[in-house]
Amino acid sequence: MQNTYAIGIDVGGTNTDMGLVRDDATIVARRSIPTSIYTQLEPYVRDIMEQIKEMVAEGDKEKGTGAIALTDLTGIGIGAPNGNYYTGCVEWAPNLTIKGLLNFEEEFHKYVDCPVVLSNDANAAAYGEYVYGGAKGMKHFIMFTLGTGVGSGIVVDGKLVHGSTGAAGELGHAILYHHGRKCSCGREGCLETYTSARGIVQTYCELKGVPVSADVTSKMIGELAHQGDPVALKTWATVGDQLGLAMANAVTFSAPEAIFLMGGPAQVGEPLLKPLREAFDKYLLNIFQGSCTIRMSELKANEVAILGAAALIKMKL
Amino acid sequence: MQNTYAIGIDVGGTNTDMGLVRDDATIVARRSIPTSIYTQLEPYVRDIMEQIKEMVAEGDKEKGTGAIALTDLTGIGIGAPNGNYYTGCVEWAPNLTIKGLLNFEEEFHKYVDCPVVLSNDANAAAYGEYVYGGAKGMKHFIMFTLGTGVGSGIVVDGKLVHGSTGAAGELGHAILYHHGRKCSCGREGCLETYTSARGIVQTYCELKGVPVSADVTSKMIGELAHQGDPVALKTWATVGDQLGLAMANAVTFSAPEAIFLMGGPAQVGEPLLKPLREAFDKYLLNIFQGSCTIRMSELKANEVAILGAAALIKMKL
Repeated sequence: MQNTYAIGIDVGGTNTDMGLVRDDATIVARRSIPTSIYTQLEPYVRDIMEQIKEMVAEGDKEKGTGAIALTDLTGIGIGAPNGNYYTGCVEWAPNLTIKGLLNFEEEFHKYVDCPVVLSNDANAAAYGEYVYGGAKGMKHFIMFTLGTGVGSGIVVDGKLVHGSTGAAGELGHAILYHHGRKCSCGREGCLETYTSARGIVQTYCELKGVPVSADVTSKMIGELAHQGDPVALKTWATVGDQLGLAMANAVTFSAPEAIFLMGGPAQVGEPLLKPLREAFDKYLLNIFQGSCTIRMSELKANEVAILGAAALIKMKL
Repeated sequence: MQNTYAIGIDVGGTNTDMGLVRDDATIVARRSIPTSIYTQLEPYVRDIMEQIKEMVAEGDKEKGTGAIALTDLTGIGIGAPNGNYYTGCVEWAPNLTIKGLLNFEEEFHKYVDCPVVLSNDANAAAYGEYVYGGAKGMKHFIMFTLGTGVGSGIVVDGKLVHGSTGAAGELGHAILYHHGRKCSCGREGCLETYTSARGIVQTYCELKGVPVSADVTSKMIGELAHQGDPVALKTWATVGDQLGLAMANAVTFSAPEAIFLMGGPAQVGEPLLKPLREAFDKYLLNIFQGSCTIRMSELKANEVAILGAAALIKMKL
């Protein structure tokens, strides 16, 4: 059977990464352009399309396809902050230099006729896991992404949950502790304030009794933990407990068969995963015991954003 | 167009209520038998079937149908504690005198060929609202039921969420406060320990500075609130704040267009609803503001259980 090809685009605040994705989850070619030099959508999409045209012109050398016509693409999938599946728009994303309500779908359709599908980056990661990764064949699972923020993507009955507005799956902003840490969203106690990279650094500095410093990173705290540093270990134990509680609460909603975890801070491995699994078991309602496991994403960290974006197209096929 | 008829059965710990339901949401006839005298499933279902046979034999007098054949029923829907949609079984329900894994679907199929659909009572209430009540036409909404416990039923993309195990939608056991009140489930801080009838009584007694007493009921606290009693008003304000936080957290999951509320304690009205709506607005993430409203169930309190059970059949049609 002949392979099919899609484009996956990951819109980040700093860079925009994109790739030509073969249907066997191989990224055949990839490109990157800066995002933050743009203040208008038109030139931004025009320049992305230039890169796409180059990639498809070169085709899939390994398979000897020759140039792939734009009309032969199965679609363009885009993972973007505040990306809305229903409207095809990015809606006032605080970390983008292009401001406002941005109709990505319409703008790309000036160049291509194929489906253009947009969702937020965590939803894309979840769907990437479903189409290409460890969640294949699962009807109910949740993805948590740890990074600058904490995102989530939720699959129920084999479908990504977008909700009535398109903004469903924001578990990073479920309130974990009443009157807890101040969140960038303006409220208090969001999961994100504890288990994002910044939240983890804050916990470490608090436990260490030093002011929060930009010199400390969650990666450093991970390395310290592997060296046996007790404050670092205590930090990850705390984060694991918090995340385990949040995950146990999420299970009461949709009874998933797995919860996946990805993102920089999650790469620390056992110092986080061990207390996380213990906390999850402790906080999980008895009727769900044994029915849901915590798993690491099976996609490579440097591929998940592009694969996830490309996977979104499957929702429209 | 001719009307169709279904049976709705509400399995309670004390009584089992059932009704012959016309498709325009009219309960044509109803019966009740005690539940707690049974220790085996077979005689229990046999006696329920006796009542059903009587009801269908009398038919719908208002519409002059004459006797309705069992084979003409669209189905039998059953709302039961720990009722599992996938298996058709009630699974070790703590408040039933019939113990173990009870295959209701199989047992009823000894008498009828029509679809027999089982789910838990809160799911049935949610689906009743969807088929017969205020949630008609909504694709995303959540039902919270306040009573002895706190239950929930969640509709995503027009379908009741059962999850991988059939036990999804247990938001009464989402942990609201870390290390909070001891719950009957063995854990601490579940929403149910604060916003169930018993939780409300406990809050009132704590605020009053008296021991928790079986003489106090949530209904009494409601009447006191309407008389202006400051401790009662403070109780409902506290409960509203707690429920508002839980509801705002639920919105981060599925971005519903409405959250419905039902059950005895919710009947108090404004003393609960006003602080609840204020808390919900306060705790709701900015991107969801204005997209979700809190509404009371539009089904009558004494009809919702039977109508909800009957509505479950629509999932199999």
